[in-house]
Amino acid sequence: MYKLYSMQRSGNSYKVRLALALLSAPYQAIEVDILRGESRTPDFLAKNPSGQVPLLEVADGRYLAESNAILWYVAIGTSLAPEDRIDRAEALQWMFFEQHALEPSVGAAYFWLALVRGGRDLQTHALEDWMERGYAALRVMENHLKTHDYFAAGHLTVADIALYGYTHVANQCDFDLSGYPSVRAWLKRVERQPRFVSMAWTPDAPANDEDLVAEA
Amino acid sequence: MYKLYSMQRSGNSYKVRLALALLSAPYQAIEVDILRGESRTPDFLAKNPSGQVPLLEVADGRYLAESNAILWYVAIGTSLAPEDRIDRAEALQWMFFEQHALEPSVGAAYFWLALVRGGRDLQTHALEDWMERGYAALRVMENHLKTHDYFAAGHLTVADIALYGYTHVANQCDFDLSGYPSVRAWLKRVERQPRFVSMAWTPDAPANDEDLVAEA
Repeated sequence: MYKLYSMQRSGNSYKVRLALALLSAPYQAIEVDILRGESRTPDFLAKNPSGQVPLLEVADGRYLAESNAILWYVAIGTSLAPEDRIDRAEALQWMFFEQHALEPSVGAAYFWLALVRGGRDLQTHALEDWMERGYAALRVMENHLKTHDYFAAGHLTVADIALYGYTHVANQCDFDLSGYPSVRAWLKRVERQPRFVSMAWTPDAPANDEDLVAEA
Repeated sequence: MYKLYSMQRSGNSYKVRLALALLSAPYQAIEVDILRGESRTPDFLAKNPSGQVPLLEVADGRYLAESNAILWYVAIGTSLAPEDRIDRAEALQWMFFEQHALEPSVGAAYFWLALVRGGRDLQTHALEDWMERGYAALRVMENHLKTHDYFAAGHLTVADIALYGYTHVANQCDFDLSGYPSVRAWLKRVERQPRFVSMAWTPDAPANDEDLVAEA
């Protein structure tokens, strides 16, 4: 059984939890609250020097970081990870796009506006840039989804899961998706998948559940 | 033969040219000068709606974007693309790290300080952030390379090529690598590979070679 270090409200962590749910893969979830510095302890940094979640223990004492790398690892051999050379390359293309175009814009806005108390005031200088780059990424996605149901291989893959992670919370951090009908239709398409779970879902209630609600 | 749209001085484009050289793969290079808007023409946007290079034509009229996805595509079946499940996941891990930690910091600094004339004055507000995040990424790399010759699989892979792209020009955009001896040793290790080519190398002299020199 996998051991996954993640944070409930992190989009990057949610990607992995969503993939594991879709795959019906059992795992043990260990909540790491990065807002409280729990990913910066000596113990956690020994596991992942980048100090980030999600982190998957893939073998005894061997850890894999980076949400999108973890997605490929857990999905290999399933329909979520295309085997065809071009399909696989196109899925990867969208996942790299997600990490440099969507995650640093929508993901950053979500973190500071939706998760960090008082974050909006701390990041006023960056907000305009996030909005501009986030909408640019959403336009590229909308353009693709006008003529495709999914991002690669003609069916749901790890690329959709990667992009769903932050796109589905864009409306929680100032982004208005009303002008992106194809993106909204794709979000619903992902949500209709068998075994889909929402970001709030957890395989076992975290010990600090009340704290999470109080802080969010 | 591959058809590659790239810009000579772009680190992301160079990654692909370096991989193709190491693999002795013949290709036709088409220079696209993004500084002159050549990636924003209707013709180019029809090939890649993101308006970015590098772009590889993988079949007639079918294009693959994102440097790191292209690296996997061209390297599949060679030692540059590890097949073992954990090795492959770790190579991917470092390539996603490259796209969200190194490319938006060192890559952005390189673009504005080394390529765009007057770019330093345009980006004074961002420079401090790039330096802080760039050094953070370099520390993570240094820490790994203290005990590893390469980033994944114990030998040169696409992960090394991805990270080499911008790390080797960090000294051209204010980063001081003197405190990163393991990173510097790894740069040399990459450069000693058979068939290694520098960023300046080109398979066929571009038509606007003199212009490039004049503008750089």
